[in-house]
Amino acid sequence: MKFSRNIESCSLSPIRKFAPYADAARARGIRILPLNIGQPDIETPREFFDAVRAFSQPVLAYAPSNGIPEYLSAVREYYAGLGIPLEPGEILATTGGSEALSIVLQCILDEGDEVLTPEPYYTNYTTFTKLCGGRVLPIPTTPEEGYRYADRERIEPLINEKTRAIMITNPGNPTGVVLSGDELRMLVELAHEHGIFLIADEVYREFIYNDAPLSTALAYEIGRENVVVTDSISKRFSACGARVGAIISRNHELMAHALKICQGRLCSATLDQVGAAALYKVGPEYFEAVREEYRSRRDAAMKKLAEIPGVICRQPEGAFYLMVKLPVDDADKFQKWLLEEFQDNGDTVMFTPGEGFYATPGRGKDEVRMAYVIKKELLERALEVLGVAIKAYNSR
Amino acid sequence: MKFSRNIESCSLSPIRKFAPYADAARARGIRILPLNIGQPDIETPREFFDAVRAFSQPVLAYAPSNGIPEYLSAVREYYAGLGIPLEPGEILATTGGSEALSIVLQCILDEGDEVLTPEPYYTNYTTFTKLCGGRVLPIPTTPEEGYRYADRERIEPLINEKTRAIMITNPGNPTGVVLSGDELRMLVELAHEHGIFLIADEVYREFIYNDAPLSTALAYEIGRENVVVTDSISKRFSACGARVGAIISRNHELMAHALKICQGRLCSATLDQVGAAALYKVGPEYFEAVREEYRSRRDAAMKKLAEIPGVICRQPEGAFYLMVKLPVDDADKFQKWLLEEFQDNGDTVMFTPGEGFYATPGRGKDEVRMAYVIKKELLERALEVLGVAIKAYNSR
Repeated sequence: MKFSRNIESCSLSPIRKFAPYADAARARGIRILPLNIGQPDIETPREFFDAVRAFSQPVLAYAPSNGIPEYLSAVREYYAGLGIPLEPGEILATTGGSEALSIVLQCILDEGDEVLTPEPYYTNYTTFTKLCGGRVLPIPTTPEEGYRYADRERIEPLINEKTRAIMITNPGNPTGVVLSGDELRMLVELAHEHGIFLIADEVYREFIYNDAPLSTALAYEIGRENVVVTDSISKRFSACGARVGAIISRNHELMAHALKICQGRLCSATLDQVGAAALYKVGPEYFEAVREEYRSRRDAAMKKLAEIPGVICRQPEGAFYLMVKLPVDDADKFQKWLLEEFQDNGDTVMFTPGEGFYATPGRGKDEVRMAYVIKKELLERALEVLGVAIKAYNSR
Repeated sequence: MKFSRNIESCSLSPIRKFAPYADAARARGIRILPLNIGQPDIETPREFFDAVRAFSQPVLAYAPSNGIPEYLSAVREYYAGLGIPLEPGEILATTGGSEALSIVLQCILDEGDEVLTPEPYYTNYTTFTKLCGGRVLPIPTTPEEGYRYADRERIEPLINEKTRAIMITNPGNPTGVVLSGDELRMLVELAHEHGIFLIADEVYREFIYNDAPLSTALAYEIGRENVVVTDSISKRFSACGARVGAIISRNHELMAHALKICQGRLCSATLDQVGAAALYKVGPEYFEAVREEYRSRRDAAMKKLAEIPGVICRQPEGAFYLMVKLPVDDADKFQKWLLEEFQDNGDTVMFTPGEGFYATPGRGKDEVRMAYVIKKELLERALEVLGVAIKAYNSR
């Protein structure tokens, strides 16, 4: 049987390959401290569950293809609060940020087209792009520069006639990089000048720790036709399992094309949209508390990392990840060793090896991504264990 | 700004174009009897809502990419009840039958590849196929033959080196055609002989009215590698808004490819899967009652249609649609006239014009799809109104 070239070029998640080793370690009684998962431990606000429980229609019917009115107006109001007035047709409800990105890429990519994205980047961008026959072209960064990428000189030379979009995650996953206003404006202008899209994945928008105001690529008049934001309630409200997101753009031609796909798949889940609409009613104190929690974890993690010789990690200003360069030969091998041969008082640690976040062969081999979505004490213990492990690994 | 050739070749849903006319008619005080919608009016079993309300985890976390264990084993058990033993990796949870089909087509179609499907067919197949760069090649049928298509002589000559799959809806939407065991076996064998897939969309499986046992394309040993079933709880349990479906296949290579896409989009909604798992606990009396209700509606509709001169409709044996040939010049024009110029004691009627279900230009012009998902009295009144309207329309 023949399969498509696009799917043949995609891979299973590289993150999963350690699952059997982790299971075996657990079976031996080892406690695994998980820095590898992006699933926040913050409780989902009860507004979500209350709204879902209060749903009383006898038939769980299709939602409108573009989203239920309550959710669309909740998103609209939220953006109005950011100073971005949106018209009704400028928001489409999607099944998470993932579907939002897939739909946008399906609307703009022909076979062989390119999307520029700063490397390291969220692995699934590769899958979404390849399924459209497209190709991710990485914008290079370095751990030493804290993975910053928003220089015109670095990006503009990569744009060619095949480039259809610059795709960014801001704040960044896996790097935590937060763009300054000037950097973001430069990217919007760059997209505008070259007649391409700026796809801004802003699902981590609230998670910034430098007291800067929340930002969005939608804020620049010049980018009205160029900017498309993909958004989601998953991280914002710790509601990953709801799969509710949005495509937001003032490019009405793009939105009309995206609506075709939305109609094709009929709708996003009705109840989850009901819950999502309710989530947008939580007050600013919710975000402040969550932000404070993550900030304190980030600070604790940075402090512990600074104690491990040879580790390189510039303090990131957003999201809840740390991309860290380790003094080891190969993070993949190191992870396997951690699960198979190491323990410190019964503990070992899991992270996500860095190679999977790179498109450039060979890059990221000595880097790892850590998510600080576990309690501070566990996080601190995990990084202590990491320090002991690096020493042991390098003196085998 | 440039958009992809695939999306440029897709259309907005043709069904929506009458919405403004319908709104205007309602504003004039006309009652519109809706035969155009595929949204069942049957209540969603309370098992769904009970399970969702009982969900008590504080964090609404990602589900596993392949589905939550409760849902996967519910589906497995359901298929065991049909005499189809399935191994765990042979089921993937999807966001409705729509995502199931999209994923399967993404796994098998390269640009220019063809999918054979009996015409008239479910409109969104075109969108899913075109988004992969593929093309739907219709297997012709006629209203006079009751839209039956499963003849080897009719299908085999259409298979060429670009054909990757035969795609069927069984029972059929919009035709209600139910394949006999011999017909289904022939299709499986045909796919096997030509080394292509048989994609069987079996979301209407329970809705058959001829007392035949429930059937599935998975039942034939010869098709182990060729058959892939797409399934959904939407129609089965009148839970369209939940968006929970499945890909089911014993082709492990296909399932491994499909899992890449499932991992890329992370998961289907957690709570909806919890509800879906609970739905599979409803007993056979649920299906019997629903089947009886639809059967009695179909019979009532057939009786009323038989009273309208010039109408052609062979009694379909499944699903909840009637594809009907009307004695009018153009179903589109007729629909517009019905909404703009006609009323019978304040009532008019909406159906779905047939052209949208055809890929062959010009076909379906005098056909319409009607869904019998409204109460019998309304249905009967709608068809009375239709009879009066046809007479009035043709003697303008």
